[in-house]
Amino acid sequence: MPPRKITVMKFGGTSVADPEKISRAAERAIGERRKGFGVVVVVSAPGDMTDELIALAERITPQPADRELDQLITTGEVVGISLFAMACMARAVPAISLTGPQAGIEAVGDASRAQVRRIRTKTILKHLAAGKIVVVAGFQGLAPNGDTVTLGRGGSDLTAVALASALKTGRCEIFSDVKGVYTADPRIVHDARKLSRVSFEEMLELAGSGAQVMQARSMEVAERFGVEIHVRSAFHSLPGTWVVSKEKLMLEKAFVSSLALDKSEVRLTVVGVPDQPGVAARVLTALAAADIPVDMIIQSAPSQAGVNDMSFMTPKAFAVKAKKALEGAAKALRAERVDLNEAVAKISAVGTGFRHSPKIAATMFTALAEHKINIHMISASDLRVSCIVDLAQGEPALKALHKAYGLAKGKR
Amino acid sequence: MPPRKITVMKFGGTSVADPEKISRAAERAIGERRKGFGVVVVVSAPGDMTDELIALAERITPQPADRELDQLITTGEVVGISLFAMACMARAVPAISLTGPQAGIEAVGDASRAQVRRIRTKTILKHLAAGKIVVVAGFQGLAPNGDTVTLGRGGSDLTAVALASALKTGRCEIFSDVKGVYTADPRIVHDARKLSRVSFEEMLELAGSGAQVMQARSMEVAERFGVEIHVRSAFHSLPGTWVVSKEKLMLEKAFVSSLALDKSEVRLTVVGVPDQPGVAARVLTALAAADIPVDMIIQSAPSQAGVNDMSFMTPKAFAVKAKKALEGAAKALRAERVDLNEAVAKISAVGTGFRHSPKIAATMFTALAEHKINIHMISASDLRVSCIVDLAQGEPALKALHKAYGLAKGKR
Repeated sequence: MPPRKITVMKFGGTSVADPEKISRAAERAIGERRKGFGVVVVVSAPGDMTDELIALAERITPQPADRELDQLITTGEVVGISLFAMACMARAVPAISLTGPQAGIEAVGDASRAQVRRIRTKTILKHLAAGKIVVVAGFQGLAPNGDTVTLGRGGSDLTAVALASALKTGRCEIFSDVKGVYTADPRIVHDARKLSRVSFEEMLELAGSGAQVMQARSMEVAERFGVEIHVRSAFHSLPGTWVVSKEKLMLEKAFVSSLALDKSEVRLTVVGVPDQPGVAARVLTALAAADIPVDMIIQSAPSQAGVNDMSFMTPKAFAVKAKKALEGAAKALRAERVDLNEAVAKISAVGTGFRHSPKIAATMFTALAEHKINIHMISASDLRVSCIVDLAQGEPALKALHKAYGLAKGKR
Repeated sequence: MPPRKITVMKFGGTSVADPEKISRAAERAIGERRKGFGVVVVVSAPGDMTDELIALAERITPQPADRELDQLITTGEVVGISLFAMACMARAVPAISLTGPQAGIEAVGDASRAQVRRIRTKTILKHLAAGKIVVVAGFQGLAPNGDTVTLGRGGSDLTAVALASALKTGRCEIFSDVKGVYTADPRIVHDARKLSRVSFEEMLELAGSGAQVMQARSMEVAERFGVEIHVRSAFHSLPGTWVVSKEKLMLEKAFVSSLALDKSEVRLTVVGVPDQPGVAARVLTALAAADIPVDMIIQSAPSQAGVNDMSFMTPKAFAVKAKKALEGAAKALRAERVDLNEAVAKISAVGTGFRHSPKIAATMFTALAEHKINIHMISASDLRVSCIVDLAQGEPALKALHKAYGLAKGKR
């Protein structure tokens, strides 16, 4: 009979980077098993293995086919799971490694960005019933045509959440090299505080604000299927941060929980766009046609000359391609020129109930003004206020806002 | 419709050691396709990848479970096939990589030493019909329980031969870092000659004599299913050596085709064994119980004191374990002691019709005597005569015999 209680534990690449770290992670899984849990472990590719495999492929061809690239890089996780199972067995604990297909993870969609369709848990439950630690390869599933395909970037988190949902555990432990979710990056803001709880929505906004804690899609799936997530360090035994539903947090008033600083984007501005209907749509269509992700979109009010400026934020990697696409559109629209500014930073405050409290945004703008930090662009949602500032002012802005919102002494 | 003519080409680890070598190998496969063949390529793990993966496992545990070790090392061939398929596609030639399980290779038996049960060729034929180069992972198959298991040491050769048999190609090309089968190791004997043809039986004897050309089991399967093998260099376009049936060679008289020098074994001698019935059986049983492979077995004629000596050859890696097993048996049998001699070499002449021609063995002993090379042990079969000599005399013995048999000017 399968164990009554099951824990799903996921270890990221840095937590299984070498045989010694794998052995330590295995000891954590064994500790959980000693407490009476059936243990399912999801493992990523050790260390930089995925990047090394991609580098090999790039020495063969600049544009490998997605199907073959998936065939190649899914081996990284298989290396991780087999070593992990060996580490358990070396400690006299029965274990078995299962690839995504062996674990019954069925996927649909194209190679490199497939989605989990369903999980047949029979094999996993059989091995759990036999007392084994079941070690499942993250980031991969079986396509209907028999291919092993990857579940998109950061997909090991998704595997863990999907397994927790299929096995009805209600929760999932995500081990990585961060201790949890902080009020701000502790490497910059020294009195930043670890949050004990945060909502799925806030985590999603944080992911979109440049905080590299968890992959956005896995968070959406966790929320939809009611899987609470414990984000914690693989190298410390302290509790981390629980990601739970908004309702569970029972917050009544507007509240900033965390700040994020993102230096990975650039600003592009189309200057002197004639103020006519359909212009914004044509500019955006040009970006979409070139497959360029766009974060903020700001259009200035028209000048007396009947022209305005349109600005966008996009990841650095897309800067050149985006500029080219915009220059084509600018020419067609008889706009003046396209400016590219790489020396910018995005600073975001993430929390709850912002719509009902203009005070959150007001506090931000006041604090930045007091520190003479100029704001280039602003965007806001119900859960987030973001400002674009000069790159050099990103860290001073982060520190100023951490203080202004009183985050160092809050209690979530 | 699948192509009328199919070629099976196998590339060993050194032939696909890096992206550049993979690209060159892909070009050879593409050349074969241009000639109108359907091309099935069997690929080994690139370079030292298998050994590197085993070294990782050994940092986790000295004795990894076979099942997990197979899960780990089968990734090496998957890396090889995906990169190979990418290299074909980079040259605008359609290709697809298939793992052993995806290629329909079904295995039975335990992990680490499974055997091919059958090959369902449907998937391979479908992709051939679509004009693709089909790149299959060597050394692996699908076990009935869904595990991916390895086909024993050197098993990529076996995959190639089994595919050639299942696809009824009648032949199979084995590409490696040797140019073919030589009359003796050309690094030692400078006028050694490449044989254009050799029989399966001779290749089997050569494999057992320390010549690292092809794995013995794949040779047996090739003979049984009538698959002729072309052993050739991955780095030169010259023809190599064809391995064909004895009948095809149509040799009428005794003939030495090739010499082999093997420095990988040690000699163990149980000294002063009482000459009683059943003694040899008990010594051999002790070795068998400890899973020690034994090559030659020589028992001296009993001395006047009614005792004799028993000598064995075994691979170096088993020396310590074998000595221990023999010491246990020696004690029980009241034998005097066990000697271990590591400074020995085995020199073998392989050919056809030896039984009918004592001249082959006589030539060997005469030549060695003329060069004052002392012979420790002798064994002979219908296809082979082997002598154990001092390690230091191995290479002089090889040169002397190459000359005595006139191999440099023969014509096979």
